Amino acid sequence: MAEAIYLDYAAATPLDKTVLAAMQPYFAEQFFNPSANYLAAKKVRMAVDQARAEVASLLAVRPAEVTFTAGGTEANNLAIKGVAQRFPGAHIVMTALEHDSVREPVAQLVRHGWRGTEVNPRPDGVIDPQAILKAVRDDTVLVSVMYANNEIGTVQPLSAIAHGLESIRTTRKQTGNNLPLYFHTDACQAGNYLTIAVHRLGVDLMTLNGGKIYGPKQSGILYVAAHVELEPLISGGGQELNRRSGTENIAAIIGFAKALGLAQAKRKEEVQRLQALQQHFIELLEQKIPNVIINGSRKHRLPNNVHVTIPSSDNEQLLFALDEAGIQAAAGSACSASSQEPSHVLKAIGRSDVEARASLRFSLGRPTSSAQLTKTVETLAKILE
Amino acid sequence: MAEAIYLDYAAATPLDKTVLAAMQPYFAEQFFNPSANYLAAKKVRMAVDQARAEVASLLAVRPAEVTFTAGGTEANNLAIKGVAQRFPGAHIVMTALEHDSVREPVAQLVRHGWRGTEVNPRPDGVIDPQAILKAVRDDTVLVSVMYANNEIGTVQPLSAIAHGLESIRTTRKQTGNNLPLYFHTDACQAGNYLTIAVHRLGVDLMTLNGGKIYGPKQSGILYVAAHVELEPLISGGGQELNRRSGTENIAAIIGFAKALGLAQAKRKEEVQRLQALQQHFIELLEQKIPNVIINGSRKHRLPNNVHVTIPSSDNEQLLFALDEAGIQAAAGSACSASSQEPSHVLKAIGRSDVEARASLRFSLGRPTSSAQLTKTVETLAKILE
Repeated sequence: MAEAIYLDYAAATPLDKTVLAAMQPYFAEQFFNPSANYLAAKKVRMAVDQARAEVASLLAVRPAEVTFTAGGTEANNLAIKGVAQRFPGAHIVMTALEHDSVREPVAQLVRHGWRGTEVNPRPDGVIDPQAILKAVRDDTVLVSVMYANNEIGTVQPLSAIAHGLESIRTTRKQTGNNLPLYFHTDACQAGNYLTIAVHRLGVDLMTLNGGKIYGPKQSGILYVAAHVELEPLISGGGQELNRRSGTENIAAIIGFAKALGLAQAKRKEEVQRLQALQQHFIELLEQKIPNVIINGSRKHRLPNNVHVTIPSSDNEQLLFALDEAGIQAAAGSACSASSQEPSHVLKAIGRSDVEARASLRFSLGRPTSSAQLTKTVETLAKILE
Repeated sequence: MAEAIYLDYAAATPLDKTVLAAMQPYFAEQFFNPSANYLAAKKVRMAVDQARAEVASLLAVRPAEVTFTAGGTEANNLAIKGVAQRFPGAHIVMTALEHDSVREPVAQLVRHGWRGTEVNPRPDGVIDPQAILKAVRDDTVLVSVMYANNEIGTVQPLSAIAHGLESIRTTRKQTGNNLPLYFHTDACQAGNYLTIAVHRLGVDLMTLNGGKIYGPKQSGILYVAAHVELEPLISGGGQELNRRSGTENIAAIIGFAKALGLAQAKRKEEVQRLQALQQHFIELLEQKIPNVIINGSRKHRLPNNVHVTIPSSDNEQLLFALDEAGIQAAAGSACSASSQEPSHVLKAIGRSDVEARASLRFSLGRPTSSAQLTKTVETLAKILE
């Protein structure tokens, strides 16, 4: 049987070989606890500091603003719960497109007395900045807007939202409202394809995930601007400037920094390459499967995401048949352990439950080729015959 | 220069080569998201399930009672905060010997309206079960007692405490007090040397840490008995039976299970070997450094820990001189990122700040030899001359 065609890079990326090579010395040789006193341990501390400086440089921020976490879900939880716990009962705004690792923390907080508002996107899966700004109240402490959606791949206008939030902050100062108004973005799907320079986005908090950028699983960061007040979710030894305790996962930290550096170095070239493949893939789909619906804005979109609804189909059956034919794709998000419920993202852009169950996500990656996509469309068309 | 003599196994252990070998396929090859639908991902899910079953079997519990975490600090936070959040304002009992990853969560909770009581050990660093039982009140929901101390190596009488707690539970039932009374233990230092069979300990929650048992850093578990009510600390996709969300760190999970299996298989033989070395080490120390004080009970003690106070010495200078001579040891816990404050554990057993700053921890491991320990004592005696 031919090698499988993997089209689920939004769910998981293989660890890049050079990233793994950079990690290897930290498993069995440089295994020391970086908080220990001897020289060998101090060298490990220096490697962690170096990785932090590299990540900070890629984000154009200060090293002390980078908190290493065990992945994107933890970083999102830290952003949401960490800020909320400093401001009991305050109001949080998020979009209806957020990943469960933002939605669930907000839901937990609401059960414990905080307030939350969910903002719907336009039917193309893009958020109107005005809709966010309208949702902000005098007691809003945090706004969380995903940079790029993990299911339908739409990219949100962070900088426009940031400008609007800045006006609200100015008004607050003038009216004597001293509550901060922080802006968080979950950028887990963005690291390979979009700028992560924080000053261009205007965010105060940003989540990145190594497992989606050919880095190690459960590696990631939360960028926390110096002025942000945040209570640690995981407390103890005071590591990560007391924002996240626990003996550092050195190999994962080194690997994350290396992976992010590679992803950003390859970014522009890879975006061009994937945009051409994406265009080719969509054209073929529309040609061979005439009733196909492409979900989400075609303009404000990740270059590696193609999300379709094929009316009257059943995505579970399609995925099974594709897998049998050696093609690995997804129905919505694989990040949810129980994928029985129809996707909240598809609901938010107006798809019915039936349509949601007739939807497929193809996400492209570094090894994806034009030939693989041609074969995928031909196979899918044949299955649908 | 001769190879360094590493005597800080309580701070960090190197990853066992066979554990690393077991992890390797899950970095770049079997990298799939276990929540995905295709067969290749389901195989990864099966590997996670298999690892969970192996760990459960070592603890003699059900697989659903094992929650994989990113290390011991997270597991301790999940136990303390996860239980507390289900019982707002309730009372928590812990000992004065606990690791910061228990102390800090309790301190955070107390700042937010929960209640806490700290129980002091006897001067030999062992907790009197009666002291714990006396601290339990009608509103106590959780008792947390470290299995073996990370600084002075003393082992606590968990089973005696568990028996006392069971009586209190019976009384509660009779008097109509329906508040649960859970018993948690931080067993991070115990995995290599003590039984982890839960029914022999009588605990409802137990933390284990891969980084201390020759497994990967930031791997670990929280054992959570089926009847325990616990709110997730990290929520989102609902992984780990909704107790801890985030795409699974497959390599770390596989590595943890392998490391725990090895540690428990080697346990009895290694305990015997290390007890002999420990005895030899203590005898030499007392012979060559007549004013040395051995801290902590000699009977209720980990076989790999020797903790000393050398009156009128300065541990920072000693550690520096030892490091220069190729010997890596510790002053108290390396798990704390800021080791400027004198150890709370040494204070709890009655050592003054000056004595605490004259104290050293030597922790032995699998490669430790009698010759290494002889050389260590000779070097230390020479430094003290």
